[in-house]
Amino acid sequence: MAKDVTSREENYSQWYNNLVVKADLAENSAVRGCMVIKPYGYAIWEKMQSVLDRMFKETGHKNAYFPLFIPKSFLSREAEHVEGFAKECAVVTHHRLMTNPDGPGVVVDPSAKLEEELIVRPTSETIIWNTYKNWIKSYRDLPILCNQWANVVRWEMRTRLFLRTAEFLWQEGHTAHATKEEAIAEAEKMINVYARFAREYMSLPVVVGVKTESERFAGAIDTLCIEAMMQDGKALQAGTSHFLGQNFAKAFDVQYATKDGSLEYVWATSWGVSTRLMGALIMAHSDDNGLILPPKLAPIHVVMVPIYKTDEEHSAVIGRMNLLKAEIENAGFTVEIDDRDNLRSGFKFAEWELKGVPVRITIGPRDLQNGTVEIARRDTYEKMSVSRDAVAGTVASLMEQIQENIYKKAYDFRESRTCKVDTYDEFKEKIENGYFVLAHWDGTPETEEKIKDETKATIRCIPIDTFVVEEEGRCIYSGRPSSRRVLFAKAY
Amino acid sequence: MAKDVTSREENYSQWYNNLVVKADLAENSAVRGCMVIKPYGYAIWEKMQSVLDRMFKETGHKNAYFPLFIPKSFLSREAEHVEGFAKECAVVTHHRLMTNPDGPGVVVDPSAKLEEELIVRPTSETIIWNTYKNWIKSYRDLPILCNQWANVVRWEMRTRLFLRTAEFLWQEGHTAHATKEEAIAEAEKMINVYARFAREYMSLPVVVGVKTESERFAGAIDTLCIEAMMQDGKALQAGTSHFLGQNFAKAFDVQYATKDGSLEYVWATSWGVSTRLMGALIMAHSDDNGLILPPKLAPIHVVMVPIYKTDEEHSAVIGRMNLLKAEIENAGFTVEIDDRDNLRSGFKFAEWELKGVPVRITIGPRDLQNGTVEIARRDTYEKMSVSRDAVAGTVASLMEQIQENIYKKAYDFRESRTCKVDTYDEFKEKIENGYFVLAHWDGTPETEEKIKDETKATIRCIPIDTFVVEEEGRCIYSGRPSSRRVLFAKAY
Repeated sequence: MAKDVTSREENYSQWYNNLVVKADLAENSAVRGCMVIKPYGYAIWEKMQSVLDRMFKETGHKNAYFPLFIPKSFLSREAEHVEGFAKECAVVTHHRLMTNPDGPGVVVDPSAKLEEELIVRPTSETIIWNTYKNWIKSYRDLPILCNQWANVVRWEMRTRLFLRTAEFLWQEGHTAHATKEEAIAEAEKMINVYARFAREYMSLPVVVGVKTESERFAGAIDTLCIEAMMQDGKALQAGTSHFLGQNFAKAFDVQYATKDGSLEYVWATSWGVSTRLMGALIMAHSDDNGLILPPKLAPIHVVMVPIYKTDEEHSAVIGRMNLLKAEIENAGFTVEIDDRDNLRSGFKFAEWELKGVPVRITIGPRDLQNGTVEIARRDTYEKMSVSRDAVAGTVASLMEQIQENIYKKAYDFRESRTCKVDTYDEFKEKIENGYFVLAHWDGTPETEEKIKDETKATIRCIPIDTFVVEEEGRCIYSGRPSSRRVLFAKAY
Repeated sequence: MAKDVTSREENYSQWYNNLVVKADLAENSAVRGCMVIKPYGYAIWEKMQSVLDRMFKETGHKNAYFPLFIPKSFLSREAEHVEGFAKECAVVTHHRLMTNPDGPGVVVDPSAKLEEELIVRPTSETIIWNTYKNWIKSYRDLPILCNQWANVVRWEMRTRLFLRTAEFLWQEGHTAHATKEEAIAEAEKMINVYARFAREYMSLPVVVGVKTESERFAGAIDTLCIEAMMQDGKALQAGTSHFLGQNFAKAFDVQYATKDGSLEYVWATSWGVSTRLMGALIMAHSDDNGLILPPKLAPIHVVMVPIYKTDEEHSAVIGRMNLLKAEIENAGFTVEIDDRDNLRSGFKFAEWELKGVPVRITIGPRDLQNGTVEIARRDTYEKMSVSRDAVAGTVASLMEQIQENIYKKAYDFRESRTCKVDTYDEFKEKIENGYFVLAHWDGTPETEEKIKDETKATIRCIPIDTFVVEEEGRCIYSGRPSSRRVLFAKAY
């Protein structure tokens, strides 16, 4: 177990917090609820951004940038949206500070009060639809397929690094379409982009589904989501894609002239993933010794630790490492040689395990004699002695194996913790033990809320690509008829 | 002259505003002073970001992310910094809205007043140095070489798209060093990175120099800058790099243990470029028909416009275009075929000229017969008929030529508008006519201010790599002795 890291068994929540901080991913800042994303954590986020950005562009989207601030009155335009977002938020009321006339420092200049308060965006539907109004006149202006990489602020009371912070980084796609069908297809396309990203890059098996009414985005007709299981059996919502109908077009009066000249309201979607994905990545794969990163998102693929006693041995080992580093980099992987002279190799091993570097290579004097190196896998701790001619090839092959292995491990874990349940007693027991539970539900928000109050379990989604169970049954709570099982779990 | 675009001669300022809006780069938003960066404008910014980010990483920097908000008290810690930045800024005073008890909409919840107001970052030295305090214990923790891509807010009274907006996008590098020499070398290295970026990618000849005391960043010991000449002869500051001495380390008590165990304050730099570069790019090269973009930053390199009358001709031309598009894309350039059927080709030509696409290719039925295409250069309007086998090669060669030609044009223009002046009368005349003026100055802020008041000219910099003139002389204003000429100009 890594130094200063609580084990998962002892306290899962503490283990997560320790890892984030000890692995140099992020830390709390002097501003309540706002985090500092440290270079190692940000490097992972940049890799995520880069892949997602490419996937968005391949599906026809373009990036743009909209204002940080939203006039207060905009939030009230869409009736449900205001309920969801005009609550805990950062409100800008003044635009000037002045020297404190009564003491040291600066104070707010009372004469610089804004006529209308500005809200730091919690999400950008309102400011964007107010902009789209000027961009859309005719069917020829549609579709509009924009994405924005931005920071947003929601004044959360209880915050946790990456999982729930007052400020977080995200992307938000906002699209405008001529028809309902096209907008629905877009919302589905983007949730599938997220699912593919989670599975192929994050090694994260996710369930794709539809949210119930009570879990929907405020202002959406339908919210699609991807849900992943963490190692404590809880669900984490990792991305959402919303079919917004004509709600925002009506709120901001955005109409287009059809081919035959009539005016119609525009159809909308929005979709986003955030730095919360970092939390999912960490919690899904890591162990008591630290992070386990999927190679496709690891900032450093290979770390090399030299073993030596004399200066002569040191320079021979480092010489060999530099040659191998060049070879491995040529194969497309990043390599770091840890040549710090004030630390013992055991300490270095622990530190790189903590940081989740997929492969470690050690070379000592005996390896030089034998023409070998020692390779250790982070995910399985397996060690192997490999001929130095085979190092680059072995590394390339290990990266694929690790990427697949940690997906499989997470997948098998989720399978072992997912069950169908037909009685409320069994439901409560399974939920208590950290299961994904597939159960019949009568479709009413009242039942959903009662189950939540009594068990803390929520309906994560009505699955549409995994665990799809269309069958007649009876609601575990009310006994009323139901035509399909939905997915319940406790959630982050 | 493009439709609805004022000519440069008639009104340079209006011409600029027209171009930004008509070329779909950016527009004003509903929030005073905040702009919307439209997809075409953002695509140029993304190209800038991508090149700069690579250059930063090649020079050893890592990206990180620090909070959007700064506690009000932080700004007061560094005495000069507070004077410069604690003025016009966005102040967050509350963290909740509530339903209006007296009418429709939402109002600020008076019970949700923050204990200490938060400022939306105008720049991040204070919050970052408060963070570095925890990262730096010993000389082994140094240097720290961080960069952040972020939005910042300065509540400017008079705003202009890209040039001066309340919110803008930028990068800010913040580095920490063990020695003064190392920090000075870092500040110089980064201003040279900016200069190379401006010259090689933006085709922008820039002067590298040092700011006078009155033009320095608030809190800096020295500010280095790059200054470019716009087509009206005014200077535009395109990037700055600051040697901050130990000012922020002392303000936030950041000390490190040296090898021999004593405690020393850390040395700092910061450096940044912003979306203001977009303004420089537009104003330096464009003409009355629209943007002229350097190929290295153009989102679209080649636009193809089909000429046809019949459906048969149309499909033959488009067929040929698709083949050529693939060839040109293979050579590494982006191509768009403008196949809109509701617009005349003359209208399309004007629109793509407005958007600054470097090369236009037209193909009509006669070209198909002759096995040729017509290629037009955006920068010189030169047209040439090229055999279809030679198209990809010609395009590649034209991209290089255009990149160089617009640099040379801007360089020659600046040379023709730069002069040495030895009398105040001549100084006033040249400044009035939009020149860069190299003149002797007595080194006092008083003289600098008087010249500014009387002529609106400021000292853009004491040049260090261009126009360096070390010679004895007498100040044009006071007649006192001076050992080198400095660069005066009116500026944006």
